[in-house]
Amino acid sequence: MNEQTMAGSRLRGYVSHGAELRSGELNPRTYLEETLTRIAELDGVVGAFVVVNREGARRAADESAKRWADGRPLSPIDGMPVAIKDIIETADMPTGQGSPLWEGTEGKRDSASVHALREAGAIILGKTTTTEFASKHPWHETTNPHDPKRTPGGSSSGTAAAVGAGMVPAGLGTQLIGSILRPSSFCGAVGFKPTVGAINRSGSHDHFSQSCQGSIGATLADTWAVLRAIADRAGGDPGYGGLAGEVDFTQRTKPVKLAVLETGGWSATTEGARRAFASLKHRLQEQGVEVVGRADDDRIETVEQAVAEALPLTTAIVAWEGRWPLNTYADLDASKLSLDARDRLKTAEAMTQQEFRELLNQRTAVRATYEEAAANYDAMVTLGACGAAPVGLGSTGNVAMNVTASLLGCPALTLPALADEGLPLGLQLLGRTDRDAALFDVANWVAGEALGRPDLVGRVA
Amino acid sequence: MNEQTMAGSRLRGYVSHGAELRSGELNPRTYLEETLTRIAELDGVVGAFVVVNREGARRAADESAKRWADGRPLSPIDGMPVAIKDIIETADMPTGQGSPLWEGTEGKRDSASVHALREAGAIILGKTTTTEFASKHPWHETTNPHDPKRTPGGSSSGTAAAVGAGMVPAGLGTQLIGSILRPSSFCGAVGFKPTVGAINRSGSHDHFSQSCQGSIGATLADTWAVLRAIADRAGGDPGYGGLAGEVDFTQRTKPVKLAVLETGGWSATTEGARRAFASLKHRLQEQGVEVVGRADDDRIETVEQAVAEALPLTTAIVAWEGRWPLNTYADLDASKLSLDARDRLKTAEAMTQQEFRELLNQRTAVRATYEEAAANYDAMVTLGACGAAPVGLGSTGNVAMNVTASLLGCPALTLPALADEGLPLGLQLLGRTDRDAALFDVANWVAGEALGRPDLVGRVA
Repeated sequence: MNEQTMAGSRLRGYVSHGAELRSGELNPRTYLEETLTRIAELDGVVGAFVVVNREGARRAADESAKRWADGRPLSPIDGMPVAIKDIIETADMPTGQGSPLWEGTEGKRDSASVHALREAGAIILGKTTTTEFASKHPWHETTNPHDPKRTPGGSSSGTAAAVGAGMVPAGLGTQLIGSILRPSSFCGAVGFKPTVGAINRSGSHDHFSQSCQGSIGATLADTWAVLRAIADRAGGDPGYGGLAGEVDFTQRTKPVKLAVLETGGWSATTEGARRAFASLKHRLQEQGVEVVGRADDDRIETVEQAVAEALPLTTAIVAWEGRWPLNTYADLDASKLSLDARDRLKTAEAMTQQEFRELLNQRTAVRATYEEAAANYDAMVTLGACGAAPVGLGSTGNVAMNVTASLLGCPALTLPALADEGLPLGLQLLGRTDRDAALFDVANWVAGEALGRPDLVGRVA
Repeated sequence: MNEQTMAGSRLRGYVSHGAELRSGELNPRTYLEETLTRIAELDGVVGAFVVVNREGARRAADESAKRWADGRPLSPIDGMPVAIKDIIETADMPTGQGSPLWEGTEGKRDSASVHALREAGAIILGKTTTTEFASKHPWHETTNPHDPKRTPGGSSSGTAAAVGAGMVPAGLGTQLIGSILRPSSFCGAVGFKPTVGAINRSGSHDHFSQSCQGSIGATLADTWAVLRAIADRAGGDPGYGGLAGEVDFTQRTKPVKLAVLETGGWSATTEGARRAFASLKHRLQEQGVEVVGRADDDRIETVEQAVAEALPLTTAIVAWEGRWPLNTYADLDASKLSLDARDRLKTAEAMTQQEFRELLNQRTAVRATYEEAAANYDAMVTLGACGAAPVGLGSTGNVAMNVTASLLGCPALTLPALADEGLPLGLQLLGRTDRDAALFDVANWVAGEALGRPDLVGRVA
């Protein structure tokens, strides 16, 4: 297995097919049937889906086909089969939150994002596995599509695995600590965690202040198009302006200056991962991009120091904010909570409001430090994970390289551009808050030009 | 009926009984039985409760009695019967959201605030009526406890009516536009809408960016104690520090300077209301408080101009943010939505993300204008409603005097200190964001000293 075949052969885009869809050469129902076939072939081993709504999807695909035939698609993603992480409510499928306490729970309504996707003509294909309450414990056995002995990462395990296996072109995930970037890196998909608040989370069991909804896709174009379609119709979280900007994937502008960010997780990266990253850095420099590190710019070192404790700070914030609903679930049936969930609740119950206020102040300060430095660069770059997906399904892997962007609330994107142990590894790009489109512009050039991987961009002309 | 008997005779506090509770002279079960008797006597006409959990309340009261007897109450509100607005989830009672679509829906869990109240030993007595989705349409017939031909106000109709009728010492409400201040003013209760984000709304069907959870009580002490107990245990909304400060009700410090705010709603106030306000203003001045209006300070006029369009601005923000979940409810059964809800959805569907971004920018600017002016005063004062509760149950009354604080996100409190048409009318105090305790300090002096109404403060020594 090499990098090209791994990422290239399995991923399969949708919006790239715009011309075929418009001309009628490609029918959304045909595309869907291929998707369903691929799921039938692979999902017995991968276990990405909790439920697939085959008949509902077929009806939706036929309606989409009619719209394309009439020249009236609802959006660029009309007819795209989309996978939904199973903490996000869907009117036609239960929402289990990866927990035995919630399995099979019917919610009667779509989340804001799912409703927006339906309005855009997308096909809500199925619900994908998540760890318990989108946190740590994997009750479901989802495997990495590149090696069934390895974890797909979490908590957006099923969406990343489904995309990495080429079952679906894109899906929704959520990230509070590392739940989009890490599984995308492990499964060889594009993963995008937007600016905090950019996508309306209403109707998702996801209430943490630094969490956000994002997308995992086969191509940059699909990954962006899914979120653009949602923000157009449902906006961001209440009180937020929502995903900012538009991306023109036909324009590839070389970034001037990138910063290398060796965060607190860097010491946990594998030798292979660091080697892959060094080689990529060299490639960018060869192409005339200025790549700056802490030795060249003190502000980068300041950021690295500021985010050094990103994980304990995040863990403490998440503990207090997660007191509810864990306390009510413990009242219902504590035996159906993982040990990890019970421990988090204990931690929360020992905290005070005043302690939490101080944590928030720390987070605000770290964010300001980052934004000040980030304003001098087109993007910051680092590894998408500590290395290849580790062997074993009991843990979803180390979050050390993913927590930084979560704490910062900034947009972050991982490109399946590197390899470690012959398996996928992401290149992570971090952008400036509320400049999500600008981050895609950089990724577009990196994938399409620097890496010579237009397949990761997707044809969008 | 006069002002004294109206407000004084019906309201009945709880934390005032601290000494009797500690000594065993007052047993929470005895207090509860009086409460249940009063509900049995009055609620046939008032219709404040959707459901009362009599047996659960009795069990909780007995447990509370034991804690007091053991000298181990969980908080000052241990044993206090509390009414919960029926958009806030409760594990032991359904949550109907004032909508035929949701009536009887079992949620399996407590909201963050209800769970915190239980942890503090409070008795979750019952669920109180609300207009549809805490917005305009009153599906339930709740009447004003002072005159059954009149509205109790909304959307926290039942909680305000239950407190105003002396059925319960306090309860939870929510305010997005005017849903705590208006019914409190109409029903003759203390109503407090804290700083936006101050009370954790998780588990309440209340996701709007300027909405917040607050309390309605018989006394300032009860009103504060309920929210303090919640914030200690559940904090504020995720990402917010939560209700700030402590109040010492035994200390009454005269404010130096109050600003009179004649907001956009002033022109809709009744002559009787303006007369009552003028008389109160005179009384404050007699007691040596400087009372400043727009004629004396340009900054006040600037605020009045900035908030002149508070209602249309709020209405537009609320429309966009309310697109979800109304769209999913329309999918379920549009015939079970009020015409008003269907209209709001239509408005939302015609809006764009960019329009919403501009509305948010406007709100941010108005907030900054207010905070700058408010920093020069101990509080701003105005009317709690346009006048007495109007006759008729089809509408919950004019929100014009209530929307300002909602848009501003600042804390606001209404004291049942005035009268119009021989019926209750509130005096509204507006404070500075995140200085909720300081606003109670002013209210404590106004009620206890200026008005000579220590019954509205509650004994807390």
